[in-house]
Amino acid sequence: MTKHNSKPNILVVNDDGITATGIKNLMEVMQEIGNVVVVAPDSPQSGMGHAITIGKPIRFDKIDLYPGVEMYKCSGTPVDCVKLGVNKIFKGKKPDLCVSGINHGLNDSINVLYSGTMSAAVEGAIEKIPSIGFSLDDFAADADFSHTKKYIKEICLQVLENGLPAGTLLNVNFPKGDKLRGVKICRQANAKWMEEFEERVDPYKRPYYWLTGVFENFDKGEDTDVWALEHHYVSVVPVQFDLTAHHAIQTLNGWNFDHQADSGLKGKNTISAPDGINLG
Amino acid sequence: MTKHNSKPNILVVNDDGITATGIKNLMEVMQEIGNVVVVAPDSPQSGMGHAITIGKPIRFDKIDLYPGVEMYKCSGTPVDCVKLGVNKIFKGKKPDLCVSGINHGLNDSINVLYSGTMSAAVEGAIEKIPSIGFSLDDFAADADFSHTKKYIKEICLQVLENGLPAGTLLNVNFPKGDKLRGVKICRQANAKWMEEFEERVDPYKRPYYWLTGVFENFDKGEDTDVWALEHHYVSVVPVQFDLTAHHAIQTLNGWNFDHQADSGLKGKNTISAPDGINLG
Repeated sequence: MTKHNSKPNILVVNDDGITATGIKNLMEVMQEIGNVVVVAPDSPQSGMGHAITIGKPIRFDKIDLYPGVEMYKCSGTPVDCVKLGVNKIFKGKKPDLCVSGINHGLNDSINVLYSGTMSAAVEGAIEKIPSIGFSLDDFAADADFSHTKKYIKEICLQVLENGLPAGTLLNVNFPKGDKLRGVKICRQANAKWMEEFEERVDPYKRPYYWLTGVFENFDKGEDTDVWALEHHYVSVVPVQFDLTAHHAIQTLNGWNFDHQADSGLKGKNTISAPDGINLG
Repeated sequence: MTKHNSKPNILVVNDDGITATGIKNLMEVMQEIGNVVVVAPDSPQSGMGHAITIGKPIRFDKIDLYPGVEMYKCSGTPVDCVKLGVNKIFKGKKPDLCVSGINHGLNDSINVLYSGTMSAAVEGAIEKIPSIGFSLDDFAADADFSHTKKYIKEICLQVLENGLPAGTLLNVNFPKGDKLRGVKICRQANAKWMEEFEERVDPYKRPYYWLTGVFENFDKGEDTDVWALEHHYVSVVPVQFDLTAHHAIQTLNGWNFDHQADSGLKGKNTISAPDGINLG
């Protein structure tokens, strides 16, 4: 990536794969803002979460999919795409913005954890790049993203102008359809999937399972992403990758790990013994 | 899983695969505490993060690997193992404890995101099961886990006795070797991997890449997991799966998404328009 002008350099990634309609739409918006490099999986990688490829090598090749766009396909995960983009294309000179999506399907609430789209944006944030994941409530391969574009442009311009608080990124989700009521800053709803594994039998009489499930929201709050989306808002959740439950530290410090007579553990946690003394 | 006695029911999972030494050691400790069911990947799944299997079916079969132990192998990810265990074995009656590991290799700091071991424990916590991930600073297949066992037992007994604060789980990491100074409750260190992709060329003259890197700690705090491990403590970090950066919400509410003359967005974010009015 060579910066040709004063425009921002933008890394575009996704998890639905490089040929998805969603990333084409996102790329088009980014072309109005800056210099675009696309690095995306060569096949769909939905539900890959924060997976990285460590047990096998990764293919990474330049392709000409859309005229005039610098694009690379990658055999790895969405997070691999960010790592490769930063390391091999930008070569350590970080892009000014990393955007992921537009995902075909919502990544609200607990889905932030399962989503390759969001994990790619998290990886961008770990690299200290202002990062945003975008998702639409429509799984269709030919989903209509047109109503999302001006919001995406505005949110990206705001992030480029204001930056983001340290250690955070944005999770932006769009309702389907164009009757949007505006942008709402939200928290992640307390919701989860109620799984059901559908059992089938293969031609050789052996069982196999499909993961299916129903999304259930336990959260009555009107400040959540689930609430916002149900009420036709664009939901914007600031996300962090420090997973420490800071509020629980005090509770745990009140525990005594010297329960067992035979444990060899001395006193309360965090009390230290002199160096070299073997408490094991 | 049928509960045969008043002992707790314990789900044991990992990401290194069902034949790993680490899960055997964890299983042995858990047999001292309760009724054990093991559900683990049929192949190594390190670095799988919170990935789930949605694009293909999952194999899930009972096996007899160790005498008298109820064990299942799964073709899916560590998170799939938890979902299958809860849904197919415990059948909705949640286990009393979910333990993951013992991982061959540390999962301190930012590794909590990449780790299949930790993501499996996170999934247990999402299911409202008290959950703990255990990892040792030793990648060797024949790593010596003996010094970890009494700590693991004690931590599990404490969790069974006290429960864990809602929405949290524990990330427990062990230094290598037996000169341990006790347990220290920590926060996740601000550290990351400095990636280097090693490029090679295959016999057909095409390039491929191996992900390698160096772990770099930017955090000078003495309350972090990295610090604790370097100083021969067992590090215990309470982890949460609400990724909302709550502190950033106020900042974002100060932004004005009505920047562009042509945006169609009216006023500040969160201001609503009457239902049915199309702002798109």
